[in-house]
Amino acid sequence: MGKRVRVFAPATASNLGPGFDILGLALERPGDVVEAEIGDRPGVEIVEVTGAASLNTDPTKNVVGIVAAATIEKLDLRNHGVRLWLHKQMPLGSGLGSSAASSVGAAVAVNALFEGSLSPDAIVACALHGEAAASGTAHADNVAPSVLGGIVLIRAVDPLDLVQLPVPKALRIVLVHPHAEVLTSEARRLVAASQFTIGQAVTNLGNVAALVTALHRNDLTLFARSISDALVEPIRAPLVPNYDVVKRAALDAGALGCSISGSGPSVLAFADSDAAANRVATAMEAGFAGAGLASDRFVGPVNTRGARVL
Amino acid sequence: MGKRVRVFAPATASNLGPGFDILGLALERPGDVVEAEIGDRPGVEIVEVTGAASLNTDPTKNVVGIVAAATIEKLDLRNHGVRLWLHKQMPLGSGLGSSAASSVGAAVAVNALFEGSLSPDAIVACALHGEAAASGTAHADNVAPSVLGGIVLIRAVDPLDLVQLPVPKALRIVLVHPHAEVLTSEARRLVAASQFTIGQAVTNLGNVAALVTALHRNDLTLFARSISDALVEPIRAPLVPNYDVVKRAALDAGALGCSISGSGPSVLAFADSDAAANRVATAMEAGFAGAGLASDRFVGPVNTRGARVL
Repeated sequence: MGKRVRVFAPATASNLGPGFDILGLALERPGDVVEAEIGDRPGVEIVEVTGAASLNTDPTKNVVGIVAAATIEKLDLRNHGVRLWLHKQMPLGSGLGSSAASSVGAAVAVNALFEGSLSPDAIVACALHGEAAASGTAHADNVAPSVLGGIVLIRAVDPLDLVQLPVPKALRIVLVHPHAEVLTSEARRLVAASQFTIGQAVTNLGNVAALVTALHRNDLTLFARSISDALVEPIRAPLVPNYDVVKRAALDAGALGCSISGSGPSVLAFADSDAAANRVATAMEAGFAGAGLASDRFVGPVNTRGARVL
Repeated sequence: MGKRVRVFAPATASNLGPGFDILGLALERPGDVVEAEIGDRPGVEIVEVTGAASLNTDPTKNVVGIVAAATIEKLDLRNHGVRLWLHKQMPLGSGLGSSAASSVGAAVAVNALFEGSLSPDAIVACALHGEAAASGTAHADNVAPSVLGGIVLIRAVDPLDLVQLPVPKALRIVLVHPHAEVLTSEARRLVAASQFTIGQAVTNLGNVAALVTALHRNDLTLFARSISDALVEPIRAPLVPNYDVVKRAALDAGALGCSISGSGPSVLAFADSDAAANRVATAMEAGFAGAGLASDRFVGPVNTRGARVL
């Protein structure tokens, strides 16, 4: 048996209020672990999936298989093979970038296994094959921060243009995941089927420009004023049980801002200290409990390292 | 006769590619001059308008009169009066923020005349009465940079939230004004009547976030990649004679980017040196000449001072 590579790829929160499809950040936890060994024959084999009974081990139907094949192709190693183990450590359809974390884990693991020298952008491009398979569009706002860590701006996808943004030191992330599921592909379909007024676009343009300025200036007051989304939140809020109550609870408990994480149902809030972040998380969990839902909280700083070989 | 105050208020370029209604910058020239004296009786009198035969001297129908009245009201000087002189030094309906410059000149002049202490935000709020009268909406992307100078982000208008952005030292502005007119109110109506896809919004969100980052990092390469507008340019380009030719000429001559200034017909380009800026201006003028139009060029750095008492 050859060497085995183990990779941790972090969960991510995307959109960050006004930045639909263009902003995302990495969390310290949860995250997926992907293991890879060189196979005896060409092709991709998924040996085992733990932590998610519903996931397929057919490598053409699981994002880790799809991404591993794309990465082997990118590395120009077409007659090589890999064997993969996927350890899901986060729920599916949660708004935590679950498919992105698995995809990134596979791309980083295959690159490391073959001692490839793919750039972070090339890793992102490989992992996007998984996003396209999972949700129907190759949006990079989960994949890019899972690879790079920190807060990432996706200026454009084709060609890929990623910009790493500064992370204010005091910023704390609060992610509360209620035990419910939203289908990313369905949530995306709702948005794609909508039309928007110029007023909605202008509101988000102003807020996203201010949010980016706030990061560069380390100005959490301006940051707080900018976490507002007139485009997508009105469409997706009904998919998240008790969203208005949870958001109100977060803001009342001192959150800097609150929005749906990705396509939900997880809700993302920001705080300026660990103490405030924990208060906000407790208030948000109470909000979900009001809809009869248990939930998990993930509280901490932004993960500035991104995916890593363990 | 009492003292007379003279104010110069600069022309402005708004939108800056992806930032419809939220970004604007001030030019060194042209600009309007407004003079003000304390009147003998309450109310506003427009004594003279030079440089624009078509403008009304009825103070309820000219933006300087409307803004002067709003400023007197804001200063709580309702039983005072002013006499105004407006010296138009730029064309109307040009995309240079002509009505904004006159409005700002009036607000700054009245505040200075009465030794008021209105904040820049309050001056902007007064001048917005002129924009509402001239174009039907109180958009601040010309007024704010004319007051403050530099490159200004209008995060929101109600309540007003202005953010001054860094100005890269090497940045040069090229504004070419063809001898044609676009009615701002009509150009705005076309945009207001349109509906937009999420893809168009996402393109502009990514570009505006990258543009702001480029300013903070003094990165003119990223700036150049970000000057692109999927929302409004497709709607307004047909209003600008030969726009596609002029834009192509600007980029081929080395412009960092090119877009319609405000609602046109002036076209805005960016360059990274005086020499490049002049080459770009010459190429753009040739583009308009191809449509049989003479044009004026305004080339220089961003005006970082804003409106000032002379």
